[in-house]
Parts: sequence; C-alpha cells; structure tokens
Amino acid sequence: MTLAHGRPLRAIPGPSILPDRVLRAMHRAAPNIYEGPLIEMTAEVSRNLRRVARTDGHVAMYIGNGHAAWEGALVNVLEPGDLALVLVNGRFALGWSEMARALGIEVELLDCGTEAAADPARLEARLRADTDGRIRAVLTTQTDTSTSVNNDIAALGAAIRAAGHDALFMVDCIASLACARFEMDAWGVDVMVAGCQKGLMTPPGMSFAFANDRALARRQTMTRVSPYFDWLPRFHPAMYYQNFCGTAPTHHVYGLHEALTMILEEEGLENVWSRHEAMAQTVWSAVDVWGETGSIRLNVPDPAHRSVAVTTIQTGPGEAERLRRWCEDRAGVTLGLGLGMGGAKSPPGDSIFRIGHMGHLNPPMLLGTLATIDAGLKALGIPHGGGALRVASETMARVASA
Amino acid sequence: MTLAHGRPLRAIPGPSILPDRVLRAMHRAAPNIYEGPLIEMTAEVSRNLRRVARTDGHVAMYIGNGHAAWEGALVNVLEPGDLALVLVNGRFALGWSEMARALGIEVELLDCGTEAAADPARLEARLRADTDGRIRAVLTTQTDTSTSVNNDIAALGAAIRAAGHDALFMVDCIASLACARFEMDAWGVDVMVAGCQKGLMTPPGMSFAFANDRALARRQTMTRVSPYFDWLPRFHPAMYYQNFCGTAPTHHVYGLHEALTMILEEEGLENVWSRHEAMAQTVWSAVDVWGETGSIRLNVPDPAHRSVAVTTIQTGPGEAERLRRWCEDRAGVTLGLGLGMGGAKSPPGDSIFRIGHMGHLNPPMLLGTLATIDAGLKALGIPHGGGALRVASETMARVASA
Amino acid sequence: MTLAHGRPLRAIPGPSILPDRVLRAMHRAAPNIYEGPLIEMTAEVSRNLRRVARTDGHVAMYIGNGHAAWEGALVNVLEPGDLALVLVNGRFALGWSEMARALGIEVELLDCGTEAAADPARLEARLRADTDGRIRAVLTTQTDTSTSVNNDIAALGAAIRAAGHDALFMVDCIASLACARFEMDAWGVDVMVAGCQKGLMTPPGMSFAFANDRALARRQTMTRVSPYFDWLPRFHPAMYYQNFCGTAPTHHVYGLHEALTMILEEEGLENVWSRHEAMAQTVWSAVDVWGETGSIRLNVPDPAHRSVAVTTIQTGPGEAERLRRWCEDRAGVTLGLGLGMGGAKSPPGDSIFRIGHMGHLNPPMLLGTLATIDAGLKALGIPHGGGALRVASETMARVASA
Amino acid sequence: MTLAHGRPLRAIPGPSILPDRVLRAMHRAAPNIYEGPLIEMTAEVSRNLRRVARTDGHVAMYIGNGHAAWEGALVNVLEPGDLALVLVNGRFALGWSEMARALGIEVELLDCGTEAAADPARLEARLRADTDGRIRAVLTTQTDTSTSVNNDIAALGAAIRAAGHDALFMVDCIASLACARFEMDAWGVDVMVAGCQKGLMTPPGMSFAFANDRALARRQTMTRVSPYFDWLPRFHPAMYYQNFCGTAPTHHVYGLHEALTMILEEEGLENVWSRHEAMAQTVWSAVDVWGETGSIRLNVPDPAHRSVAVTTIQTGPGEAERLRRWCEDRAGVTLGLGLGMGGAKSPPGDSIFRIGHMGHLNPPMLLGTLATIDAGLKALGIPHGGGALRVASETMARVASA
Repeated sequence: MTLAHGRPLRAIPGPSILPDRVLRAMHRAAPNIYEGPLIEMTAEVSRNLRRVARTDGHVAMYIGNGHAAWEGALVNVLEPGDLALVLVNGRFALGWSEMARALGIEVELLDCGTEAAADPARLEARLRADTDGRIRAVLTTQTDTSTSVNNDIAALGAAIRAAGHDALFMVDCIASLACARFEMDAWGVDVMVAGCQKGLMTPPGMSFAFANDRALARRQTMTRVSPYFDWLPRFHPAMYYQNFCGTAPTHHVYGLHEALTMILEEEGLENVWSRHEAMAQTVWSAVDVWGETGSIRLNVPDPAHRSVAVTTIQTGPGEAERLRRWCEDRAGVTLGLGLGMGGAKSPPGDSIFRIGHMGHLNPPMLLGTLATIDAGLKALGIPHGGGALRVASETMARVASA
Repeated sequence: MTLAHGRPLRAIPGPSILPDRVLRAMHRAAPNIYEGPLIEMTAEVSRNLRRVARTDGHVAMYIGNGHAAWEGALVNVLEPGDLALVLVNGRFALGWSEMARALGIEVELLDCGTEAAADPARLEARLRADTDGRIRAVLTTQTDTSTSVNNDIAALGAAIRAAGHDALFMVDCIASLACARFEMDAWGVDVMVAGCQKGLMTPPGMSFAFANDRALARRQTMTRVSPYFDWLPRFHPAMYYQNFCGTAPTHHVYGLHEALTMILEEEGLENVWSRHEAMAQTVWSAVDVWGETGSIRLNVPDPAHRSVAVTTIQTGPGEAERLRRWCEDRAGVTLGLGLGMGGAKSPPGDSIFRIGHMGHLNPPMLLGTLATIDAGLKALGIPHGGGALRVASETMARVASA
Repeated sequence: MTLAHGRPLRAIPGPSILPDRVLRAMHRAAPNIYEGPLIEMTAEVSRNLRRVARTDGHVAMYIGNGHAAWEGALVNVLEPGDLALVLVNGRFALGWSEMARALGIEVELLDCGTEAAADPARLEARLRADTDGRIRAVLTTQTDTSTSVNNDIAALGAAIRAAGHDALFMVDCIASLACARFEMDAWGVDVMVAGCQKGLMTPPGMSFAFANDRALARRQTMTRVSPYFDWLPRFHPAMYYQNFCGTAPTHHVYGLHEALTMILEEEGLENVWSRHEAMAQTVWSAVDVWGETGSIRLNVPDPAHRSVAVTTIQTGPGEAERLRRWCEDRAGVTLGLGLGMGGAKSPPGDSIFRIGHMGHLNPPMLLGTLATIDAGLKALGIPHGGGALRVASETMARVASA
Repeated sequence: MTLAHGRPLRAIPGPSILPDRVLRAMHRAAPNIYEGPLIEMTAEVSRNLRRVARTDGHVAMYIGNGHAAWEGALVNVLEPGDLALVLVNGRFALGWSEMARALGIEVELLDCGTEAAADPARLEARLRADTDGRIRAVLTTQTDTSTSVNNDIAALGAAIRAAGHDALFMVDCIASLACARFEMDAWGVDVMVAGCQKGLMTPPGMSFAFANDRALARRQTMTRVSPYFDWLPRFHPAMYYQNFCGTAPTHHVYGLHEALTMILEEEGLENVWSRHEAMAQTVWSAVDVWGETGSIRLNVPDPAHRSVAVTTIQTGPGEAERLRRWCEDRAGVTLGLGLGMGGAKSPPGDSIFRIGHMGHLNPPMLLGTLATIDAGLKALGIPHGGGALRVASETMARVASA
C-alpha cells in the first residue's frame, strides 16, 4: 500500500510550488498583443521585477530559462577573448563558465570548493594582481542550487571596489531572487540574472537579465550582439513587441504579474526574505539533529554560507536515493535529487539529496516534508539522531512567533 | 510577521481538500443537458456511487447538501406520526432527529453520550421491547463529525436482525463514506445518506440517498412525497432530467466523476479505507503523547469507537481557540472548530478542536498539520507531553511500510 | 469532414454559456465554512440577488435547481387543499402546476395556448368570479422556455390588484431573470423563483425563492414546512449554516458572486436588459425572413409576447431535427431541441428548435449562430427565404449603434 | 450601449484562440523535472511536432517565440559573411532578413511585392546565376502574416533543385504550420521554423527549428554556435535538461501535448488542413462581395497565392481603423490591425485590417466574425457590396457538406 494519494508535495529546488492564484491568472483566453491591458501589465511587471531586484537599473525579460538569461547576460557585455573570473562553488557556476567558454570568452575559475562561500579576500587579491585589467567581469552565483552554498554578494561587491578594479560584477540569482536578501544597487552588482520559476513562483518560461548603467555602457561598446538577446530594444522598447523581441509570452505575463503582486503588495519583500530565513533555520535545526548519529550532514557547515532557499544534505552511500524513493513512492513527497556538484571530492548523487524551501511555502508544507523524511529514515532503518522533529517544532514555534 | 504565505492547508472535517484534478474537471464549458456525453457520465456516476456504498440497491442523487439528503431519506419512508429511534452520539444525529421532528415524525432518542459508540445490545433490547412494532426506523450516524465517534454499523445492523424487528436501518455516512469501511448490503443497511464534499472530494453541492428494495417497498406505501425528494423517478429515470428532478448539476457531475475514478479505478476503495486508517492512527498516536501532560485528550477514549476521518480533541479552557488562531494566522493551517456536541456535559467550543483527515490526504499534509499544532502548543505555552512528533513519525513509518 | 473543431457554441436555452471569469472564480481550494471571507461574500450574493430581482424583500438561496425553487416557493405559502390558479402557456408552467398537485395543492389551469401571453383581462375576470376567495395564489412564468412566450408580469400584477383579490402572485423567472426587465416590487410580485444557470451565468446548482412581506406573512401561518425548503431560517439566518440549511455550496457562491459583479457593477442591469432586447430583435428579424418561403416560423407571432432570452421556432416536419444535427455535427453549434409544449395542437419535437440567447452573449456569438443555421438550411435544402443574414446584420448594426 | 459583453472573440492572426482543453492541461502543479511523466511526454511532443512538419528529421524545441526560432535557425547554419537570399513578400520575411544582417550574414533580397507569391522561375534564374555558389541559403516564409501571401514552397523547393544549387532551403512556417499543407521532407525543405501560438493553439512561449540531415551536416561545420540555440544537444539530448538547454517549459509541454493530440489523434492533420481551406474560402467569398462597391479588397488578388490562415484586407483611407474600433468596442470582436507590409507602395495601417482564421476555429466563430464586420460596415456607412453574408453562408454550406 502507498499513502501517496493526497496532494503531491514537491520539495524540490525548482520549479517551485505554484500558487493557485498564479495558475488561475494564467487560465484565460489569448489576448490581443497589439493593444489593450497586456501593454500596461507588461510595463508593471518590468517595474516590479526591478523592485524585487532592488535596482533602479534596467531589465531584459526573456522568453527563456535560466540558461537563456546566462547567455543574455554574457553576450551583451563580453566579447570573445575577454577574460571572465568565475567564483565556483557548485555545478551552476561551473555551468555558467562553460557557457561563457562556448561563447569564446576566456574563463578563469576561482575554485571555492563545494561547501563554503567564496572568500572576498581571495577575490580582492586576485583582482589586485590583475594589474593590466585583463579581467573584464567577475561571475558568481548568489545561491548555487547544487551545493546550497550562498555567497555573500555584498562582501564580494565590496571586495571588487576595494581592489579598485573595474570588472563588471555579474551575479546569478536564479535560485535566490525573492528568497534571500538581495540589493542590486546597494551591493554594487552590475548584472544580475534570474528566472521566474523559483522564488518568483511562476511556471518555467521566463528569465531576466538586470543591468545598471555601467553594464549598459559596456553593451554600447560591443561589436555584434545576438538580436534575440540584445538588451537595447528590450531595455527601452519603442514598440511593444520589442519587450520580447517578437510575440510576448502572454500567459507568463499574467502569471508573473500575479506572483509579483503577492510578493510586493501583499506579503512584502522584506517579509518574504524573513519567511525564507525562518524556514531555512527550521530545516537546519532538524538536519543537525539527524546528523548526531549516522552519516547525514548538511553540505555547508557554516550557517553563514548557507542558502535560505535550498538545503543540500549528504548521507551515507545510497541512503539518499533510498530515502528519496520512499518519500515519493510511499508518502507523496518529492525531494530534490543530488546533482554532481562539480567538485573533485563531491559525493556521488545517490548520497545527496536536497530540500527545496523556496517560494510558496508555509510551516505545514515544510514541517510535513521534514516529518516525512523522518518517517522515511525510520522506515528504512537509516541511522539518524532522534528528536529532530521536536527541535524543528521548537524552531518553528520561535520563528513563527517573531 | 506571519509565515502563512504558502498553500493554505485546511485540516477541517469538510468541505475536504479538493484534488486539482477535480477542480480541473469542473473547469469547462456548459454542456448540452439533453444529449451527449453527460448522459452516460451521469449513469456512470450513479453506478460508481453504489460501488462506493457497496450496494446493489438504488441511489437518488440530489442537488443539495447533507441536510437535503437527510430530508430526502426521511420523507420517502416515514410518514408524519411514524416513530423513529435515533441513536445519538453527537450533534449531527441530533440534527437529523430535529429534522425528523420538523417533518412530523415522532422521535425517540437513545442517548449514547458524546464519547462512545452506540451499544448494539441496548439497541437490540429497545427493539425487543417494541412489541407492537411502533418503531418504523432506526437512525444513526456512522461518524458524527462533532464528536468523532464512529458507530459499529455492522454490529448495529446485526442487533436489529437479532431483535427480529423490521424497522428500517438508516445510516448517515456523510462524514465517513469513502473514508471508513462501509458495506451497505452486507451490513443490512436499508437507507444511507452521504454528501459529495467529504470523502468524495468534490465541492459541496450534491448529496445522496441510497436505498435497498426493502426501503423502496416502504416508499411505495407512502401517501404523498415531496416531488423534489421523491425517489421513484430518480431511482429509475425514464428521461434524463428525472435524474435530478430538473436541470442536472453539470459541473458537479464532472467533478464527482473524476473523484470517483480516483477512488475506484486508481487507488481502490480498500486502499482508500486503509489509508484513512493509517492516517487516523498517526493522529491518535500524537494526541496521546500530547495528553501525557496538561489537558489535551482525545474526545473518544476507545480506539474502536473512533472515526478514521475526523478527530475531536479536548483541551483546557480556551486553549483550543488560541491554538486554532495561531495555526491559521501564523502558519496557514485551518483546524476544525469545536461544535457543540449536543451532550449535557459537553465542553465549550473554545476547548475543543477537530482535525479533519478525510479524503485527499497524504503523509506530508497530515504530519505537517500535526507538526504545526505541536509548534503552536510550544509557541503558546500550552502544556503538552513531549515527543508527539517522534511517535507520529514512528507510526507513519510503520503504516506507510505496511 | 466536419468543421466542428473550434470552440463549441451552445445556443441552447440553458444552461447558458459560462464566462471564463466565472469558471476561474470557481477554480479554487475549498474554504473554511465557519469563518473567513465566504461569510461576507455570501451576504453580498444575497444582497445582489435582490438587486437583480428589484426587490427589498427576502431571498432563500437553495442548493438546488429550478424545480427545487418551485417546491421551495410552493411549500412555504400553500397548504395541501389550497387552490392555485396557473396561467399556462408552455410546458414549464404546466410542470410547476404538476408539482403543486403532487404536493396536494388544488390546481386550476388557465390555458393561454402556446403562442401568446396570458391575457390580463381573463385573469382579472377569473379572480373577480372567485368571490369566496378560494384562489390562494396565481402562478405564472415570465418566460416559458419551451414556447418562448413572455408574459406581461406588470400587467398581470395590475390585473390582480384591479380585481381586488388577495391571491399571492407567484412568478417563475427561471428563464428570464437578468435577461428581461423584471421589477418584483414595482410590479406587485409576491414570490419569484429563479435559477443560477441562465441569465445568472453560473453552472446549474443554485436556485432562489424571493418573497415579499406579504408572502412571508403567509409563511407564518403554515402548519408544517419542509425543513430544507423552509424560508424562515434562510431569510434571516442567525448562524451562517442556516443560509443553506447546512453546508454552503462554496464554489457556486464564488461563481455566482463573480457573475453578479459582472451584471451589476460592470455592465449594469439596465444595459443587460437592453442587450438581450437587441439580441432578440436580431434573431426575430432573421427568422422572419427565413419564413418568407417554406415552413419556418416564430412560435410566437406577436413581438410583444416574445421572450428576449429564447426563441422557439417551428419548421416543416423533421426539418428542425435535421437542422439541429447538421449544426452540431458539421459546425459545432448546439441548438435547443424542441420540447413538447404541453399544448393540444403543439407540433412534434422534431419540427421545433430553439435558439437560446441569454446571458453571456455578444454579436459574433449570436450572428455566428444565425449564419450557421442559414448555412445549414442551404446545405440541407430546407426551403427558406433569402437574405436573412443581411437583415440580421442590419438589425445588429442598428441596435449596436443605439 | 455596447453589446460587447459575451465571450470576446479574437479574430487576430495570432496568438490564436486557445482550446479550453489546452488551458486546462496547463492548470496543474509544477512537476519534477528530473524524473517522471514529463520526460516521456516531452519526447512525445518532439515526435508529434515532426509528424506535423512531415519530416523524419530533427527538431530543436526552444523556450522562445518566433524570433528565437529565426535566430535558432540562422546561427546553426550560417556564418557571418555567408550570403542568404531572402524572398520577400511581407514584413516578416523582411524581419528575418534584418535579423540575419544583425548576425553578420550578408543578405540579398528578392522583392516579390506584397500581393503575390514568389515566382519559382525567378528564384531558379537567380540561383543559376550564382555560378560560384555564394548563396548559402534561400529564406522564405510560407505565409507572411502581414500580407497574407502564401508562397508555394513545393514549387520553390523544386526550383532550387532544378537550378542544381546546394543552398539550404529555409522556410518560416510560423503562421502556417498546422494550418496550410506543408511537407517538409517531400518538398525538399532543409530548415523550417515555427511557433506554438498559431496553428498549434498554445500560448506563446515555445518555438521550433526543424532540420534535415543536410542542415545538420552544415551545423557540424560551424565554428561557434550560441549555446542556447545550439542544435546538437537539443537534437539528441543525452540528459533531459538538454532538450531545452536547462529547465524545461513544463506547462507549455503540457499544453502543447494536448494541442498536438487534438490535431494528430483526433481531428487528423489532413482534416485540419481541409478545415483551414474551407474557412479561408468562406472569408474570401465574403470579401469579394464587399468589394463590389467601395474600396474593400483582398490584399492578394490570386487565390492560389493566399494564406488559408490569415486574410489581409485593404479598405479606403481610415475605414479599416474605424471598422476595427467598432467591432471591438461595440461587438466584442478583435480584428487584426494592419501592419506595415514593408513594401514601397503599401497602404497605411489604418486602411488595412486582417482576419485571423487559424487554429481552433469553426463555422460559428468565422461566420460570427464576418457577420459582425458586415454589421460594422453598415453601422459606419462604409460602402460595401451587399449580400456578402449570403455568399459566405453558401460557401460554408458547400464546404461543410464536403
């Protein structure tokens, strides 16, 4: 017998759980794309995206996924032959660097391991050493979804400025925007990329490149830019179709508009960040207890280096895989599978699982996930410390009363 | 700050949680009601309802709620002046008896308290004493949603037969159908009423009266029956519109058809029952631990007398109300409020809460509810035994691996 | 080959076409039924229903269809043995009279044929002749959906008052509310019944009995009233559940609330009436031209006696049936089939079809229906006058520019 | 007063009308993107797209719009400096050529005017003159949505082969796929691009580049290709995420899968083509009659050169704009506005309107559009020939009976 017959719960790190309201907003007839309410709604989405990013800069809204935004960021500011310094603490930073290489950009990796944030001092030192200014951009993720490492973007931005280097600071916030605090302008980020399917709670299909005037100035110097990804018409469209280089993604505009309203007008962005912080602390407190016995442990030892949107957990050999299967088949909870992290000593995928705790999430969803994992550990006889749920409940009681 | 910003979880004893599929099935254009697929779909719904009720008898499908089905059952077999014996262990049996009285039916209550099932021996004794056969019907609930008492319908049916009495046996399964095992024909139930909005996972709006041939024969003797509630055209409609005495509830037919497919064709009715049993045991195991300290306790002491669909819980004065508020406002979990139970010594509503665990439910939803309650108890400083979540997890690990 | 592969168009006289917004409003999770927004939303629906009915009186909202409202109207004001005078010009007035008979009410029919409205003078004369006041109520339809006759309710109300008779005036507006002008209080209507699935643009499942204080006073004198249909708790519910005698039809409340918002707050009730008038004139103008040759003709010769919500059309033997099949199978338009009208000389069903033009309707939908019928007549070689579409277009040009 | 209060009808040439089923298929929870049904569903979508394109070749499915597919086609087979010959008979061919230029591709336009298809003999002559093989590709649209010209792709393909030239034949079927007959392999097309939002009846957000082995061989010779648009991983993905170069457009996969099922499994592709042909003939027959008086005329005189998916219509100065406004504001029909056609002598936009008749369309929708236009012409006093609707009805009667 399986008990997996109620509402399936995806506790994966994206695509995240969709609010009913977002789906409902998308369930409507095709609109006119030349006139009518869609025009102003699109402008409002653009404004609201920039509010979420905390920037007075520009945004290009792509019909595309995170990879599209990666490319849309790179091709507007880096020519083939330019050197990019990539801070790597997971598979996704690595992926972005591979895309840069495929575009002809020269890449230098700054390997930060897979269990800790990048060290601002190392970045500053490297930039100081770049006396001839070869490095044109510094690339990093805020959160790497594979390892759940969170980089301190404010500190890295400060390091760049401390080094007096004019490399563009380009940050991938795909897994963190509208989850973790992010202040694009205040932190000195020049380019930021994000997608709609994580903190923004919309089905995959739109992604974004944000840029400030410094980045836009770099764009102006480029010799040739992909028309689809080109920022110029998208930043300041003279005609509506230039917003999306052609036909608009009408239903995604509806959905994203609703999600942004929930975030900005109803819950409030600061509250969204606090809620993610609260959820993350609850997860960590439980995993720490499980880890008192056996092999389970948080991938990122230092709480200050952890994502508030996803948690990567290591287990003994094969335990993660068995646990994932049990949770999904017996209980209806889908946990994130382990991705290769790109590190030399990374554990194999069957000994890693991930809990996504981003977006449309509240205590019963999170505690239900943790409790199901706990039941799975017991059912499978996987060694683990006892009392994790009590501690999680205590944490939740504390953070929910804050 | 509130954390109640993900998917709200209603842990109330109905209307129960709606599967997305049911809502999706209802999201469609109005059909023709004279021809086309709706005709056969309605017949299939009728057949499937009888499969769920485990009867070869008849079913009247009402556009209405549980009260409509109550009336639809009474007026077809009981004349004003007839005597009905009502086994009462909660507000809903009482409500049915009040409706009978309002219809002119004479009512005798057999008070079974609010914390235990009816005693078949008492019923048998009462019927044996009715030597002149004044009692025309015995009315009871399978589950009374206010108290969460579950009556042993098989045993009560056997008691009636043991007494050699020909009273009709009429059972309200509104809160239990497709949750708790129920075998209409095998258990000798003559009339059964149910609604679509609990175990049948469909928005409120349809209810049902099932009857066997014995009940139908009684109907044939009635002098005058409400045309809307009359069984005769509904049991064997010559024209489609007679199924519903007029226009069909088209969208409810769509939704209910989908829900019945999930129950009968996909999960299987026996599995549905087992799942509810598993969920209930998990709830009970947690509440028992909470009750080790303080005032919390299950309303029904004997596990054999408990509903598998809803659990009524007593607390110290006002604790239930505070807990309900915290869970809803801080965490997004709506618990069932305490209804007056109709008993002389019933606790006030603010010292009762109820957990609905019926229908579209799986481990993360249930464990998430229990864990949120646990967090609420801690946050509010309500005395409770420690370790309830560990025990719930152990229970779930066991039942989910069965 | 069939061309019936786009959006099917139901041109049937109910259930009428559902606005996407109504369906979207219904696509949501089950709410709490004891607290929260549903409570006020229900009160607003009740208020808005009375605005649509143009009454300061009361409304009972039933989970039910039109037949339920029929019964809900009858049992609250008429005892078995009371005499009701029923003005009949179609199957539905007849149906209501049959229900009254089944409830033990004595019925006298005033046969008005099937092609014309009731004559107020005849009604007045009959009431004047009732010197001992045996007639307790006058029943009529505003629109009879089978014949598409529309009675002049204002004139009939005036006739009752002119006769100085105190019979209650009870009107079935199921097929006309929110289509044809109706002024309950101004016209002296005591009881009115309606359903949600026609002019109110909501899936079938709710129906209504409106009453003024005169009718309510009659209710107070009744000896016994069906608890389900009883007006008293429904008119002035002390507890929320009394609104619906039990569980509320949550999703219908959502849908109906949206539809009433569209009618009252957005389009405006007067505009809704004008739009129906405009659509009806367009239909009539086309049918008149078709009828210049062959057997096609409007069932109701006098425009003043015609419904603005549905049009019944007679054809030569079998032509209607062939035309309906062609329109549905080849073109995706479902026309209303011919119901027996209840008249002695009524044509057979295969020589009648009906066009529903109620509710969510605009020029392309109506003209598309007429043009498809026109194509069907041509394809099938059914004799008809030429130029009907030109005339319909002229009519539409005129009314749409008003 | 406006009558625009029923279901709005978009008669625009895309995004086309969405079947309710497609929207319903998209209204569901976010799935796992690493395992489960989405994986096979995506493979089936890929297979079915190739069936619709009538090719045994390859398809790259982009999250993107038509412009994305344009770029996705160009960058895989043409290097900067390569020469492309573009057959232009409308704005969209011109747009594709401009994109090519922006990518550094050299472009030669073969201007075919805006009212007729490209002449295969001219193409053949030009290719024969290219004795040193400078032309690397021939680009054309099947249907140009601005002018509604339809090119004879089979004949153009034959011309290329007759010239013995090895230029790749690249065709934009964005406005015609699943509307007009198209046989990629049989007609010798090497590369074809399409979008999901026209004949494929899915909200905008996916587009496609199809290629045969000849085109794939060209890809293999390219020095550097945009990673996002690169065909190689997309044609033969080793990992699921390579299908979409990152996160899959989950909900578009659901919607498109449903639409393809409707096209291929239910209606049948040949029937889809026939239905579009039937609808187009009906439109043309009406417009021809309107044109008998006044300034209205079909943009494309020769029926053999006309699109079956969209019809561009010229009017007297400003008439089109007034007509569009009336139809939308008074009647709820949105007509396509006039786009600049890119031709030297093109009429201004306010003297052009377009009727989209692609995708999810049946007789009442099309005839309703034509009749509403007819009413608008009358209401506005725009000169037009009389009897257009009669002729349209006759045409429809004929084609629907075929």
